[in-house]
Amino acid sequence: MTDPTILVLNGPNLNLLGVREPSLYGSATLGDVEEACRERAGLLGYDVDFRQSNHEGTLIDWIQEARGSAIGIVLNAGAYTHTSVAIRDALKSADLPVIEVHLSNVFKREPFRHHSYISDVAAGVICGFGTNSYVLAIEALAGIVDAAKEDA
Amino acid sequence: MTDPTILVLNGPNLNLLGVREPSLYGSATLGDVEEACRERAGLLGYDVDFRQSNHEGTLIDWIQEARGSAIGIVLNAGAYTHTSVAIRDALKSADLPVIEVHLSNVFKREPFRHHSYISDVAAGVICGFGTNSYVLAIEALAGIVDAAKEDA
Amino acid sequence: MTDPTILVLNGPNLNLLGVREPSLYGSATLGDVEEACRERAGLLGYDVDFRQSNHEGTLIDWIQEARGSAIGIVLNAGAYTHTSVAIRDALKSADLPVIEVHLSNVFKREPFRHHSYISDVAAGVICGFGTNSYVLAIEALAGIVDAAKEDA
Amino acid sequence: MTDPTILVLNGPNLNLLGVREPSLYGSATLGDVEEACRERAGLLGYDVDFRQSNHEGTLIDWIQEARGSAIGIVLNAGAYTHTSVAIRDALKSADLPVIEVHLSNVFKREPFRHHSYISDVAAGVICGFGTNSYVLAIEALAGIVDAAKEDA
Amino acid sequence: MTDPTILVLNGPNLNLLGVREPSLYGSATLGDVEEACRERAGLLGYDVDFRQSNHEGTLIDWIQEARGSAIGIVLNAGAYTHTSVAIRDALKSADLPVIEVHLSNVFKREPFRHHSYISDVAAGVICGFGTNSYVLAIEALAGIVDAAKEDA
Amino acid sequence: MTDPTILVLNGPNLNLLGVREPSLYGSATLGDVEEACRERAGLLGYDVDFRQSNHEGTLIDWIQEARGSAIGIVLNAGAYTHTSVAIRDALKSADLPVIEVHLSNVFKREPFRHHSYISDVAAGVICGFGTNSYVLAIEALAGIVDAAKEDA
Amino acid sequence: MTDPTILVLNGPNLNLLGVREPSLYGSATLGDVEEACRERAGLLGYDVDFRQSNHEGTLIDWIQEARGSAIGIVLNAGAYTHTSVAIRDALKSADLPVIEVHLSNVFKREPFRHHSYISDVAAGVICGFGTNSYVLAIEALAGIVDAAKEDA
Amino acid sequence: MTDPTILVLNGPNLNLLGVREPSLYGSATLGDVEEACRERAGLLGYDVDFRQSNHEGTLIDWIQEARGSAIGIVLNAGAYTHTSVAIRDALKSADLPVIEVHLSNVFKREPFRHHSYISDVAAGVICGFGTNSYVLAIEALAGIVDAAKEDA
Amino acid sequence: MTDPTILVLNGPNLNLLGVREPSLYGSATLGDVEEACRERAGLLGYDVDFRQSNHEGTLIDWIQEARGSAIGIVLNAGAYTHTSVAIRDALKSADLPVIEVHLSNVFKREPFRHHSYISDVAAGVICGFGTNSYVLAIEALAGIVDAAKEDA
Amino acid sequence: MTDPTILVLNGPNLNLLGVREPSLYGSATLGDVEEACRERAGLLGYDVDFRQSNHEGTLIDWIQEARGSAIGIVLNAGAYTHTSVAIRDALKSADLPVIEVHLSNVFKREPFRHHSYISDVAAGVICGFGTNSYVLAIEALAGIVDAAKEDA
Amino acid sequence: MTDPTILVLNGPNLNLLGVREPSLYGSATLGDVEEACRERAGLLGYDVDFRQSNHEGTLIDWIQEARGSAIGIVLNAGAYTHTSVAIRDALKSADLPVIEVHLSNVFKREPFRHHSYISDVAAGVICGFGTNSYVLAIEALAGIVDAAKEDA
Amino acid sequence: MTDPTILVLNGPNLNLLGVREPSLYGSATLGDVEEACRERAGLLGYDVDFRQSNHEGTLIDWIQEARGSAIGIVLNAGAYTHTSVAIRDALKSADLPVIEVHLSNVFKREPFRHHSYISDVAAGVICGFGTNSYVLAIEALAGIVDAAKEDA
Repeated sequence: MTDPTILVLNGPNLNLLGVREPSLYGSATLGDVEEACRERAGLLGYDVDFRQSNHEGTLIDWIQEARGSAIGIVLNAGAYTHTSVAIRDALKSADLPVIEVHLSNVFKREPFRHHSYISDVAAGVICGFGTNSYVLAIEALAGIVDAAKEDA
Repeated sequence: MTDPTILVLNGPNLNLLGVREPSLYGSATLGDVEEACRERAGLLGYDVDFRQSNHEGTLIDWIQEARGSAIGIVLNAGAYTHTSVAIRDALKSADLPVIEVHLSNVFKREPFRHHSYISDVAAGVICGFGTNSYVLAIEALAGIVDAAKEDA
Repeated sequence: MTDPTILVLNGPNLNLLGVREPSLYGSATLGDVEEACRERAGLLGYDVDFRQSNHEGTLIDWIQEARGSAIGIVLNAGAYTHTSVAIRDALKSADLPVIEVHLSNVFKREPFRHHSYISDVAAGVICGFGTNSYVLAIEALAGIVDAAKEDA
Repeated sequence: MTDPTILVLNGPNLNLLGVREPSLYGSATLGDVEEACRERAGLLGYDVDFRQSNHEGTLIDWIQEARGSAIGIVLNAGAYTHTSVAIRDALKSADLPVIEVHLSNVFKREPFRHHSYISDVAAGVICGFGTNSYVLAIEALAGIVDAAKEDA
Repeated sequence: MTDPTILVLNGPNLNLLGVREPSLYGSATLGDVEEACRERAGLLGYDVDFRQSNHEGTLIDWIQEARGSAIGIVLNAGAYTHTSVAIRDALKSADLPVIEVHLSNVFKREPFRHHSYISDVAAGVICGFGTNSYVLAIEALAGIVDAAKEDA
Repeated sequence: MTDPTILVLNGPNLNLLGVREPSLYGSATLGDVEEACRERAGLLGYDVDFRQSNHEGTLIDWIQEARGSAIGIVLNAGAYTHTSVAIRDALKSADLPVIEVHLSNVFKREPFRHHSYISDVAAGVICGFGTNSYVLAIEALAGIVDAAKEDA
Repeated sequence: MTDPTILVLNGPNLNLLGVREPSLYGSATLGDVEEACRERAGLLGYDVDFRQSNHEGTLIDWIQEARGSAIGIVLNAGAYTHTSVAIRDALKSADLPVIEVHLSNVFKREPFRHHSYISDVAAGVICGFGTNSYVLAIEALAGIVDAAKEDA
Repeated sequence: MTDPTILVLNGPNLNLLGVREPSLYGSATLGDVEEACRERAGLLGYDVDFRQSNHEGTLIDWIQEARGSAIGIVLNAGAYTHTSVAIRDALKSADLPVIEVHLSNVFKREPFRHHSYISDVAAGVICGFGTNSYVLAIEALAGIVDAAKEDA
Repeated sequence: MTDPTILVLNGPNLNLLGVREPSLYGSATLGDVEEACRERAGLLGYDVDFRQSNHEGTLIDWIQEARGSAIGIVLNAGAYTHTSVAIRDALKSADLPVIEVHLSNVFKREPFRHHSYISDVAAGVICGFGTNSYVLAIEALAGIVDAAKEDA
Repeated sequence: MTDPTILVLNGPNLNLLGVREPSLYGSATLGDVEEACRERAGLLGYDVDFRQSNHEGTLIDWIQEARGSAIGIVLNAGAYTHTSVAIRDALKSADLPVIEVHLSNVFKREPFRHHSYISDVAAGVICGFGTNSYVLAIEALAGIVDAAKEDA
Repeated sequence: MTDPTILVLNGPNLNLLGVREPSLYGSATLGDVEEACRERAGLLGYDVDFRQSNHEGTLIDWIQEARGSAIGIVLNAGAYTHTSVAIRDALKSADLPVIEVHLSNVFKREPFRHHSYISDVAAGVICGFGTNSYVLAIEALAGIVDAAKEDA
Repeated sequence: MTDPTILVLNGPNLNLLGVREPSLYGSATLGDVEEACRERAGLLGYDVDFRQSNHEGTLIDWIQEARGSAIGIVLNAGAYTHTSVAIRDALKSADLPVIEVHLSNVFKREPFRHHSYISDVAAGVICGFGTNSYVLAIEALAGIVDAAKEDA
């Protein structure tokens, strides 16, 4: 029997991680982030489905598909965080715990990055810790799932 | 000779209708909506081309293609209603009567759903009646097309 | 036994319909609108009580009286749509389904007409179809009343 | 010789008190409120003229007439509190002490009820205590009138 | 044959003129204003129909009736200037030249008096000259009517 | 057995009452206010615990302690009314009826005094009546407590 | 002995009157306006000093010089109406009655023309009557000056 | 050896150029624009890679790919100019000079077109000159690239 | 030799944790939170100095003292998060890594809780995970300190 | 016969070009810009009248004089771009094609530089290319003039 | 007989002066500032009472006590400048001349530091000169006190 | 050898000092201010170049000329403080220390005087002390110049 799966979704331009503006985002690549997620998830008894797309519609498709296949979502929607009501709606429909993550501390950046369409439909938010934001989110999500199991 | 066609377009997450938040949107599925549209359109002498996509670009492609093949558009753009200038521009180019519809009464929901980029390029707006919003829109569109024929 | 009654209320200046700015509102008179409402309502098994006043207080009086005598309200509050909290409160007290209608597409007009104190206490909104806005509202209201009967 | 009179004015929809949304406004009727006002006023040596209208203009007429006949006004302008500059102007002309009252705590309700055109032309404001808001206002007004007599 | 008529309309609380806050509005009564209007209008060959109401609906009724009976309107809508979209709509329907007048200079007063729903549907605005505001408006209106006659 | 206690809390600068700006706040001292509170409370069968502090944290400490020792709070938070989310949070935790009072009519003063962080977590608001604001609040609070007893 | 002088000041681009956008401003030239001012002023016993400049500083210089030489100012500050605090300050220092005039009805134009830095330091405002705006302003100013003489 | 390449990217609905609203955008087609770009680029020693998509994600993909293959980007993002933070981020990552172009003068159009998410990450902006906007942008980009070479 | 110390600071009303609004904050007490922090910190080789105060000034004093004694700060400033520029300034002076934590997801609550004066002077933000927010913050802080050591 | 003339106008502080903040504006002087304009204009068959003033009124005078003597205007109004309604009005009266230019990319600078009173009365805008902004504007203007000739 | 005393009050974090962000505030310590104040005050015949606190309530206590003991206040309220209505109220009650000082030029810093609750209840403001801001404020205060003595 | 020169610039209407609104600005004339500046400057070893103009352009010319001839600027830009981006730009180009001064406390006046385009390009601001504002500015400027010499 396989471990339950956490869907880790990455939005636009995150495929450039380690290349794009390393002074802002650090030198780790998206592959490095995936590996760190797998490691921590593995320790906690979870599998990881790790994806990236520049297409808002594709991200929505994946969130919709998560309903049956994943036990929760760690989402770094990148720039779509600030503009996509459609992703927000998809998350609400998914009926799964969602953790919003960001590599950088968005509150140190342009004002239009201070508002998120995702925060208030997520369980919680973690930002500012680079790759570690994802790792902490994996742990936070595991905590939520484990607590829900105990309640059941 | 075939009946003239009404293009009925559905935006992101509407494929989940009947599944997503039934307390808000009711238990009818998108298939049920399509059937109701076809029925009313048939009575009025129109055919229906019924589509859904989560991709903003795909919706734009379809609106552009409507120009030669449809006599009007019934559009539930979902979340893109509130964020997509690009769909607005496509509608203006299409040079066809457009009816904006919503299943729920958007004015009872979050403030960011009170603004629509589509309303002022549409002929009219119908919202709050569930599946019936679409049926009334089919009738409204038929009324506009028939009146235009009489003028000609 | 008489048919159940739909109260159709018209606010300020709608008595001038067909006279006032025909390029904006069309040439149909308020009498024409009443006739179209009666016709569609009759087909659906409803009677119509059709009224107009320029006085906010009179509209409130009528909405209060509707409680015992009508099964729903179709309301074109005209300019009071945008300024009257008192009509809003009366509608909430009436405890009847309300359909907000407008002849013109208010979203194509001055910005102060884009906000309605009525929309979020109404079941739904229909605007932009001239006389047909009322006819569709009669049908929408009948649909709501019929569905409520089925639930009961 | 008759007791001096306090004018207690009630705005739109307050005639429905006890009927309209009892969970918000309680089960006391406007008649109950009048009785409570008379009782407390009587104890303090004042008579009460208690009125209600849904018409903004009628409320203004009554405020204008108060000048000669009443020694102060207790006003629950209902929805007109938030929209009527005309009632504000009438109050300023009346040159009488005014107490603004509300049954419910308006600050717990929709944002458009947080602004009053009346508050800054009134002597003071009392809200949130149901019928007791009126009773306390009678006492507050008596206190103002008595203090003015002492000064004279 | 009688002289053509100018309708001079006065809104809420203007019946108190000379009584209400004389430091702000002066000691002239509304009767004095009427007399001054008649005098100047008589010199210019016009009759005056001079009215006042505290009721928004009554003002709308009168504006609607003006269509056949008057050649223009001088309007001091008082507080309704700042809140009444319904009067604005009535004025647009009347299809007559309208002069907006105010006794006081509204721009020296509370900020909510700086916006008028009437100004941009009027031919022009005159404010700040007490009774003389009306007299100048009579002359301004006569000038517009005379110029229109010359054009015809 | 002692009477149940009402906690009357006074915020910054209220110790200067009667000294500070008497034209705005009157000549009564805080001691006079306390005495008036005790008198009315005594008539109604309640004891009063009357305190003042310039320190936001001290006010919070006292509100927290009220939970076990008082049956309700009359609060004049002074300037902290407009700036303290922390006092708001303490009040919500206290789970006691709270009456917000002000000596002056805050709506006649600077715009930043028109917003209160306390109003919507209080049962009601009384302002503008000087010392009498407190006395009326004692009575209002007694009314709430008595009604709750009757319900129980 | 010469007649007292009214200073009529015209701001930027008014030298183009009759040339610039005649559909908006009419075909009268600034010379025509001057002549109309002189005529009405002469009838009322006043002389006119009529000037125009495109330079804000020059307008300020002229307003400062008016103190000793003119009994009042009719000012069409053109575009500086909406941007010049410096002209406002000069007018306040001049300690003379000022009438703000505009040829067009500024409230029908761009929103940035709806605010004037001059209105609340002027005695009154007249706009929308073309050349007649100036003529009426001459008469309004004469009325103010005459009334002041009577008071003295 | 081939010439260095300028990537010319066109956003949603630009494929309709010459068809859509010719009164606003002129009769030139996107093919005409491409030809004009090639001609001017050829004169300056550059090749052109000319593309259009209605899909935000596709535009982002192309911008990411430009990094190795192009020496600069001329971008008409159409409606995405005003809504896409994701394209903005892609441009910043691309680390290439970007020229923002528009066929029409966006500042003459709806207010929501006055803000661009692209302008402040571009080297410069050219708008209002139809096809010529692109040609001038080719020249501007060549100027920047040539200057950079001289610096190196 | 002792372990390096992490200062964990708690702002107003957090002493009521487990008591105050358990539906919002859960049933864990502040003692439980402290224990969880110590446990995780111990595993990572850190000691914890855990404090709470309702006094803004005391929190500032403690932040100032942290400079020499702690290697980083985990801060739940409670309500002061949204109002205290003074705490922000103290944090900037402390020159230590700061993690902002919240038990609840502040973005699901009142709008005034969506702005933080602390976020942009903190290294990162973690909210929405109850006690686990603190535990994750301990780990995040350890990660930052360890990375800094590696760099040195 | 002389070549038609393009008026190139420069606003306040542009006489300091090459001196003022070279890191922002580059080291070219205004003389260098003039020379570059003449060169490109000469190639296209146009003469250049190149001027600079720190005085708003002088710029208006020059724009007014351009009507008869120039075939178009290239305008860098400097700081007056953001504050001068009077220059805007002068440009509208001039009835000539206007190109707005800026040396720097204004959208990268202070927010108050993001709004221009000139953009929507200009044919188009070019900014961010240093001296080249002017050269491209000369070419853009020539294109407009040539196209107009072809239409005639 | 002792010299009259100037109270110099310093708000939160100013005890860190010379330590905290020296690039922003310089290397002088608060002790250095005190010494400079004493020196200038001594020359002018005044004594100095120099204090600092991180506690808003303590600052209020001190301001209240100043009433009898000091002839004026020099206040650097630090961060409380921007958030404390309570300190503002204390200053108004103190009925003493107040000079607001800041070491740095607050207008060069974050927007929330551009608003002061103190400026409009102070006699004047001095900012941007480091320690010298205080010295100039001592002199300014002495000037005000001396002028008041001359008036008396 | 002459003393280094401080340029003291005065904007519009300051030539009326002592005449204009003495209750606001005091009875000292601009000549008195000049004398006070010279006296203090002389004591500190500086000469003063003291000027006034109502013309924005002239003030800009003078600021530009200061570059070679003065060691710093004391500027009271009067009304241009709030509206002139052009003066701001000139000051930045001048590359000299600037002290912004005002006679009155601008924060006690109309809201539009609370924003200054100059403050954040000045070294510091001094306002509210009448003539003494200038004298303190002379001293502040001398302090800056002397400190710069010591650094060099």
